[in-house]
Amino acid sequence: MRPDSTPADVAPLEAILGDRLVRDPELMRPFARDTSRAALEGDPIGVVLAESTADVSEALRWASSTGTPVSVRGAGTGLAGGAMAYAGGLVISLERMARIIDIDVANGLAIVQPGVITAELDAAAREHGLFFPPDPASARISTVGGNIATNAGGLRCVAHGVTSDSVARLEVVLGDGRVLRTGARTRKNVVGYDLTRLFVGSEGTLGVVTEATVRLKPVPAGEPRTFRASFRDLESAGRAVSAIVAGQARPEVLELMDALSVEIIESFRPSGLTVPRGAMLVGQTVGHFGADAQAEAEAITALCRSLGADDTAISDTDELLEARRLSNPALNARGLKLSCDVGVPVAALAEVFRGISEISARHGKRVSTVAHAGDGNLHSTVESSDAAADIVAADAVLDDITRLALSLGGTISGEHGIGSLKRHELPWQQDDVALSVQRSIKAALDPAGVLTPGRAI
Amino acid sequence: MRPDSTPADVAPLEAILGDRLVRDPELMRPFARDTSRAALEGDPIGVVLAESTADVSEALRWASSTGTPVSVRGAGTGLAGGAMAYAGGLVISLERMARIIDIDVANGLAIVQPGVITAELDAAAREHGLFFPPDPASARISTVGGNIATNAGGLRCVAHGVTSDSVARLEVVLGDGRVLRTGARTRKNVVGYDLTRLFVGSEGTLGVVTEATVRLKPVPAGEPRTFRASFRDLESAGRAVSAIVAGQARPEVLELMDALSVEIIESFRPSGLTVPRGAMLVGQTVGHFGADAQAEAEAITALCRSLGADDTAISDTDELLEARRLSNPALNARGLKLSCDVGVPVAALAEVFRGISEISARHGKRVSTVAHAGDGNLHSTVESSDAAADIVAADAVLDDITRLALSLGGTISGEHGIGSLKRHELPWQQDDVALSVQRSIKAALDPAGVLTPGRAI
Repeated sequence: MRPDSTPADVAPLEAILGDRLVRDPELMRPFARDTSRAALEGDPIGVVLAESTADVSEALRWASSTGTPVSVRGAGTGLAGGAMAYAGGLVISLERMARIIDIDVANGLAIVQPGVITAELDAAAREHGLFFPPDPASARISTVGGNIATNAGGLRCVAHGVTSDSVARLEVVLGDGRVLRTGARTRKNVVGYDLTRLFVGSEGTLGVVTEATVRLKPVPAGEPRTFRASFRDLESAGRAVSAIVAGQARPEVLELMDALSVEIIESFRPSGLTVPRGAMLVGQTVGHFGADAQAEAEAITALCRSLGADDTAISDTDELLEARRLSNPALNARGLKLSCDVGVPVAALAEVFRGISEISARHGKRVSTVAHAGDGNLHSTVESSDAAADIVAADAVLDDITRLALSLGGTISGEHGIGSLKRHELPWQQDDVALSVQRSIKAALDPAGVLTPGRAI
Repeated sequence: MRPDSTPADVAPLEAILGDRLVRDPELMRPFARDTSRAALEGDPIGVVLAESTADVSEALRWASSTGTPVSVRGAGTGLAGGAMAYAGGLVISLERMARIIDIDVANGLAIVQPGVITAELDAAAREHGLFFPPDPASARISTVGGNIATNAGGLRCVAHGVTSDSVARLEVVLGDGRVLRTGARTRKNVVGYDLTRLFVGSEGTLGVVTEATVRLKPVPAGEPRTFRASFRDLESAGRAVSAIVAGQARPEVLELMDALSVEIIESFRPSGLTVPRGAMLVGQTVGHFGADAQAEAEAITALCRSLGADDTAISDTDELLEARRLSNPALNARGLKLSCDVGVPVAALAEVFRGISEISARHGKRVSTVAHAGDGNLHSTVESSDAAADIVAADAVLDDITRLALSLGGTISGEHGIGSLKRHELPWQQDDVALSVQRSIKAALDPAGVLTPGRAI
């Protein structure tokens, strides 16, 4: 990477891309930031509004030859600072590469460009009786490419896994501009290394995804049901989640909101939810493979009652899940932006909740927690003003929660990624060997070191 | 890698390992070959009967420092020549590292050493109401480590995916002896690159797996059913498979045997199967998530009849699947050893079967085909004597079948891997960029080039 002090000559790239290279500082501004609280280190030198794989290839060839750092963005909804522009760097935006190229109904595959909005792919698949399993809370505003870059999770992970479980093939532009094709259209393929999954979740550090072949599944024929169960305390709710996951009924969605979260969501947009004493589980059953969604929901709520739930209900509307999906905007509206993305093995949920209560009490800070409970992924948010000292104090709470999750066999990030914001936490989870192996792979694939340098690994 | 002519001084390694390093040519012999028809290039210099991660680490440190090529083996059941010894090379056998370290019932995880027999892990999990999803036909004789090295498939892939879908964490010894730990115990983990899946299927070229944390699933509560459906021709059977996979009933297993295969299996060990005119589908339903296995099997056989099946049946015994599992020994007993492992998208099954018939007729060679039909993975076997000219002629048939599969969007290997036998086919599927990216990863992780050199990629 070149020093910031000597800006690269962008004219050769401009000659190739024309008005697909934006240089006007005003017009570049919307492409410089993601949705995180990361600080912008300076203005980029240009924004490429890529319209084709060739555009991306030209941009990266130029970047590698000039040593210019590159950030890559879909819709900019990332929460970890992975898509923040570099000072004097190039931004590659993929929002114009937003075409659904093919839906292969017979094989349950779709070929899409990276800028397709995730919910739009899902909607297009549903016209053919199929759906796209990954379902991050941001599905209506985030892109398939961004989901692939971060290996996004979401609400349906408990049933269908993460984004990488639904990616069959990728077209990727490497740092030097070469175009790599990974994977196969077949369900099984053991030819060489699993490059597809190496790129999924690599947060823009190994290449830029310009096309993806993703797996779709048949929409279950049953009538979906949503359910809720309120518990007097978080620990009981955590124990119920472990029991549900180990049982025979398979929830399509299994989420948790603590009392404070429900209160915040209700005050943001009231939907008649009663604030629980401790926590509320909300979820969905869909009747996979001829199973009866109503019977599954009844089995789950009965299990919850046997484990201490004091109020349960089953519904045939989506309202409960809509409330859950509002947690991010509701928290943001209250100025609650300092949160974590830890994961624990599901059997440790009760213990992590007990620990979070203790940490909250010890620091004297209110903590609200929502969780993709079925897969053990928690987002705890700490009350804080914008004052620097307050933010430091809130971060100390989040650090304690993160270390607690690790001590229970967990992870520092379940679905948001490392980006620039969590890089200091990497050594908490990974030892020197793991870190150096990743750096050596990065160096092998991006020898010029221009792709999202200094982030993710 | 050192030239074969200058054998390395193995004394320093012998000083460390003692009688865990075998040097006697007679005792080394059983460790020199796998189950493929690959030719042994010469005797190894020694066989390490590793009992610990430290043993593997010492062996690889010595190999890297002396430039000695290393082959790695579990039970030696590989079919692609990946575990064949190198002349003057070191063999690392993991058969003594065969301990199930832990079964974490609450989180559905098991920690195992690589030498554990796959079926034994599954049996141990079933004592706790759980099972290990990967189910290669070799499950009773192959090891978890070998399954991981080849990303083995098998009968239950149609429902549960391949081995990599069931691996959460690995402990891997790198070429220079360092010990790497990948992954996490959590369902979701997006911290850094997916190194776990980079090592799964890397066929011993990137590191030696010394411990694995694998995912278990709850055993369905339903009573399993097996079913069969006979078709007058292979194409109709292929169309039925596509329809079943796109439907609502989920088969746990969905296999195909053509008429010649059924005849060979019946003559090997009669079980009363009527040889179909064209092909027979056999499968299993297990009643996931409260679904009714009998109803699922009825739905599937009804669908088969509507698509031309002239004989269907449902049973509550495992006999049909046992017959299918006998195909490899039955073929071997007839001297039928020349086979392929291609895959196609399921909707292309009818077309690939039609093409195989044409290829068989054109070459004047009888071909028998069994398939993990639900995931589009085919094993066609060509009749051949041991005469060199006959083998060349049979290989020409297999090459044509492989190119046919590729032309239909398929793969040259669905589950057996590339090893040494299929390396010449790699450029048929992968272009120069894909090949060079893999070589650069190999060079980054194994700079001495001692781990299973010249194979897999």
